[in-house]
Amino acid sequence: MRVAGVMSGTSLDGIDVAIIEINGRRITTIGFQSTPYSPAARRAILAVSNTTTTTAAISRLNFQLGELYARAVQRACRRYGPVELIGCHGQTIYHEGGANTLQIGEAAVIAERTGVPVVSDFRPRDIAAGGQGAPLVPFVDCLLFGHPRRTRIALNIGGIANITVIPSGIAFDTGPGNMVIDALTREYTNGRQKFDRNGRIAAQGKLNRPLLDRLLADPYYRRQPPKSAGREQYGAEFVARLKQTGLPLPDLIATATVLTAASIAMAAAPFHPDELIVSGGGAHNSQILAHLAAFLPGVALAISNDYGIDVDAKEALAFAILAYRTWRRKPSNLPSATGARQPVILGKINL
Amino acid sequence: MRVAGVMSGTSLDGIDVAIIEINGRRITTIGFQSTPYSPAARRAILAVSNTTTTTAAISRLNFQLGELYARAVQRACRRYGPVELIGCHGQTIYHEGGANTLQIGEAAVIAERTGVPVVSDFRPRDIAAGGQGAPLVPFVDCLLFGHPRRTRIALNIGGIANITVIPSGIAFDTGPGNMVIDALTREYTNGRQKFDRNGRIAAQGKLNRPLLDRLLADPYYRRQPPKSAGREQYGAEFVARLKQTGLPLPDLIATATVLTAASIAMAAAPFHPDELIVSGGGAHNSQILAHLAAFLPGVALAISNDYGIDVDAKEALAFAILAYRTWRRKPSNLPSATGARQPVILGKINL
Repeated sequence: MRVAGVMSGTSLDGIDVAIIEINGRRITTIGFQSTPYSPAARRAILAVSNTTTTTAAISRLNFQLGELYARAVQRACRRYGPVELIGCHGQTIYHEGGANTLQIGEAAVIAERTGVPVVSDFRPRDIAAGGQGAPLVPFVDCLLFGHPRRTRIALNIGGIANITVIPSGIAFDTGPGNMVIDALTREYTNGRQKFDRNGRIAAQGKLNRPLLDRLLADPYYRRQPPKSAGREQYGAEFVARLKQTGLPLPDLIATATVLTAASIAMAAAPFHPDELIVSGGGAHNSQILAHLAAFLPGVALAISNDYGIDVDAKEALAFAILAYRTWRRKPSNLPSATGARQPVILGKINL
Repeated sequence: MRVAGVMSGTSLDGIDVAIIEINGRRITTIGFQSTPYSPAARRAILAVSNTTTTTAAISRLNFQLGELYARAVQRACRRYGPVELIGCHGQTIYHEGGANTLQIGEAAVIAERTGVPVVSDFRPRDIAAGGQGAPLVPFVDCLLFGHPRRTRIALNIGGIANITVIPSGIAFDTGPGNMVIDALTREYTNGRQKFDRNGRIAAQGKLNRPLLDRLLADPYYRRQPPKSAGREQYGAEFVARLKQTGLPLPDLIATATVLTAASIAMAAAPFHPDELIVSGGGAHNSQILAHLAAFLPGVALAISNDYGIDVDAKEALAFAILAYRTWRRKPSNLPSATGARQPVILGKINL
């Protein structure tokens, strides 16, 4: 069965579509494509994510996003061929873990435009079962990377970094991923670069050890999981405090890069992994990978591409796999990761 | 298969649950129960239906209503026995016919609490297919009351009155149902009575013919279908204008009662029905029924109970039938009623 997975994250970059082929337990990536949001779409999403809005704005945006998702899938299918099922995460406009969550992007519109069944709205059922409604990808990590004897850790370095310990299914945010590095890079390049391509700026800077030690003293890094790091934790305020040190920006970028790697290593080490499998934007940053290797001697370092999973496509691909599970009437939350009372079948099916 | 249908309308009275048994083409009503909304629930729904709100309020209410729906279904099942499928209309908090629509009441919560699959969110797919997303009940009218030779009209007298011509499937709002009578009755009884029980007040009043003629001159009643009457069309302003006539309230109630019957008759007569099958609250008002009989000589007058469909349960029952259609992967919109380009499978399935 050929399945498309559609993901659009809170960074509002745009819509990622991954197309996979599922043959029993074998999963093959067929293709991956990103469609950026227009500035108008980004503004409309931010408007309803703010404090006050109108029910009309949400209702309209729900249908508009459905059209955008449909077009992104159709674009990917023109390039990679047709699919028989679509899994769409939707755009999160509100999330209170364990209490409620709201994703929009009307799946009935996607189903009608494409003529293909759509599974959507994956998080509410886990919350109804007592879970946080997140994270959902660790289930897919266990499915993709499970090994009979080896302990593996799937590491995703997005804005925030998170790990899934396999096979135990323990999953949590380790701390910053790229978002501090990205913010400092935008500052350093006057907005010309959105991220530190392959860690080049970090490589020119100098690690400031006292600053790193101070940052790593944050009790978050020592707290036992489950735990999750909000985007606000490493947002504008965090970056402003770094700049107050007066250090040159390349040094700050170098230090933030080591902070990402060090906090990941602190989180991973207690599980004594045999292997670390990296995905997400951070997998392109060889500085982060080099520091990880140094901090975790004896741990084999791989990127998910080594296992046939494009590092950029993993999240979108995950929602294709979750949709397939639902289609087959199989549960796909991981209670060890979300805190749910039991495994449940996620999502809503639009025929 | 035993199926529960859950309906809560814009009048915010509460949650109606109908339980039916479907055996091939035979549909039997097992039971019907209403659970009123608490004043707090009613206030919360009104708050998000108003001009400005917060995304948080909508997200929270979505989950809270899910819990209320689940409890209403569980209460009905304790009385009438278990069900294998639930169809839940949800609470409409925004609707722009043909463009977008927003029903809340998280179906994942209902499915999780009851352990029974839930079909929800029936309207968006019809809109995606170019329809108005309403009315959806005419499809069920045709299914329930279709006859090989007779032309029947299913008439529902709720706040607004609407008819479905069977078998043609033409369906539209005829004008006021009970809402003008209800408002005048609350006024006359200082809020002690919410409706004119069995038309008793109307029976004591005197029809004012010139006023009736003036009201019937509204071009709405002569306009060709498709057409729909908003609740605002017969709301506070309409009632205020009636009171400005200075006529005694029982006379106004009598005249409003005849207006309801006359506008229905004007809408129904051109289709030359053999039979009129009445449901909704207005079916309890013998004054309306008597006027209908007088205005439509030669048309057999029945209430839906005569066909095994409780007049109060019909809407909730309709969503049980629509859910069953979706479960069986069958379309259930009526393009002649909604304006959709083609029949589509409505709703989202929560397993």
